[in-house]
Amino acid sequence: MSGRELYRHATQVRVRNYEIDWQGIVHNAVYLHYFEVGRVEYLQELGIQIDVNTIQHESRVVVARNEIDYRSPARFDEELTVMTRIAELGRTSFTFEGWIEESSTLRPVAENRSVHVWLDSNGVVPVELPGEFIATVVAFEGKNCAVRPK
Amino acid sequence: MSGRELYRHATQVRVRNYEIDWQGIVHNAVYLHYFEVGRVEYLQELGIQIDVNTIQHESRVVVARNEIDYRSPARFDEELTVMTRIAELGRTSFTFEGWIEESSTLRPVAENRSVHVWLDSNGVVPVELPGEFIATVVAFEGKNCAVRPK
Amino acid sequence: MSGRELYRHATQVRVRNYEIDWQGIVHNAVYLHYFEVGRVEYLQELGIQIDVNTIQHESRVVVARNEIDYRSPARFDEELTVMTRIAELGRTSFTFEGWIEESSTLRPVAENRSVHVWLDSNGVVPVELPGEFIATVVAFEGKNCAVRPK
Amino acid sequence: MSGRELYRHATQVRVRNYEIDWQGIVHNAVYLHYFEVGRVEYLQELGIQIDVNTIQHESRVVVARNEIDYRSPARFDEELTVMTRIAELGRTSFTFEGWIEESSTLRPVAENRSVHVWLDSNGVVPVELPGEFIATVVAFEGKNCAVRPK
Repeated sequence: MSGRELYRHATQVRVRNYEIDWQGIVHNAVYLHYFEVGRVEYLQELGIQIDVNTIQHESRVVVARNEIDYRSPARFDEELTVMTRIAELGRTSFTFEGWIEESSTLRPVAENRSVHVWLDSNGVVPVELPGEFIATVVAFEGKNCAVRPK
Repeated sequence: MSGRELYRHATQVRVRNYEIDWQGIVHNAVYLHYFEVGRVEYLQELGIQIDVNTIQHESRVVVARNEIDYRSPARFDEELTVMTRIAELGRTSFTFEGWIEESSTLRPVAENRSVHVWLDSNGVVPVELPGEFIATVVAFEGKNCAVRPK
Repeated sequence: MSGRELYRHATQVRVRNYEIDWQGIVHNAVYLHYFEVGRVEYLQELGIQIDVNTIQHESRVVVARNEIDYRSPARFDEELTVMTRIAELGRTSFTFEGWIEESSTLRPVAENRSVHVWLDSNGVVPVELPGEFIATVVAFEGKNCAVRPK
Repeated sequence: MSGRELYRHATQVRVRNYEIDWQGIVHNAVYLHYFEVGRVEYLQELGIQIDVNTIQHESRVVVARNEIDYRSPARFDEELTVMTRIAELGRTSFTFEGWIEESSTLRPVAENRSVHVWLDSNGVVPVELPGEFIATVVAFEGKNCAVRPK
């Protein structure tokens, strides 16, 4: 995974009490929720109307893979900065990366890499990424986003 | 990831209504919960007293990485079979693999690979896996579990 | 709330590890999920095609109120019996009651009462409960279900 | 339940995407989480060191009852204001009330009433509320908090 200097989008979440056990530690599955918040707000900012968090075939974009590296546990009441970028645009799929750190100390908390596949309107056959989507992402990310329409 | 014939432990979960949206599709983060159910029951069956799902440093075993590959969406009321194995024993870490399929059709649903690190009692420094833990796992998994105490 | 002898429908859930903190105690919000499992399976058994757990106005049935009384904490790996009944049929609303106990000891765990309102197809104006719905419920519950079409 | 003018504590939560279905409606159990956020921040502001959300008997304060009235569904990306107050101090128990509204329109979303019991150090026998706790709450709430040490 790439370094935090590559990210051009950031948002904040505060750890809520029901996400932790009584010692103040966030459960390992909750980080997927935080990364989702980042992806949703990233797409909102770019004006892109897709749901990248679904795995349902009825939808046009499905999540095919998730990777999370845990760096340090997040604790109750910490404010976390969630950074999000699209790192790679393939022919029929693209890759999000996410970086979470504690906002005040910049302590690394977790990293994420997720692969999303674009499907036809029946949600079955992968199709090429729309040109407008590619253009919007490249305009935002610049050369940090690898375009590989092989 | 390896094939389903390598697994020697299986358990079942039924998709609960609150895990889905109204179309009957399980959210992508919920699969981490299902794989956890598999790991917990696996360790219970082997009589191993550790919590492999925590990332807290107070604990002796922390999850360092998670990978999920989504094969097909699970739907409301489906019974899923969660298969679990320890695929690799390293020097200070070990690797779980998980396989989820729909119980009646054997339709592949998702795969998981998670890396867990054994820490000292202060929860800071990685230490070697205990000999008793290695012996118990090897006795159960046989030659399908790679032992790499490099 | 009424006694357990009034219930004619029961199902089981096993407490999953991610629903608890490390001491093995289920979080107070999780019980709403268990009662939902009961309501969904109750309606399935009676062949009724409504979603009683939504609060969205687009839907035809919305949940207007929830009450939970906690009797004793549920713990990791316990099997719970969730009993469900429709206790009252009003003019435009009806009431579910739920009872959770630990399956082997019958230790009471929690009770629930939820009120559901039937709306017109625009999801705005309450309408009278359909006659077929009333008939199906009364046929199942018998005299234990109060009918109050005032 | 009492009116919103009685509340002297408020905090905000933004509806996160994973709390909704694809139509943008928050699940009925999620509101218990929002009310918890309010209670936790309320106690933090008053400097009170108890966990009011647990139902575990090892703890000194357990939640005995929850009531939620749903007024209108919350939707994706809405900012909600969660208002919290202690409405009543009994002999061995006390009552929280909560009010959620959409921040910009003040549209009522949900109300909550929860009863919490103070237990001895063994977590079994209810004991009288500590005088310091009563004094702190009364100093904050004033005459809006009913004191009933019957």
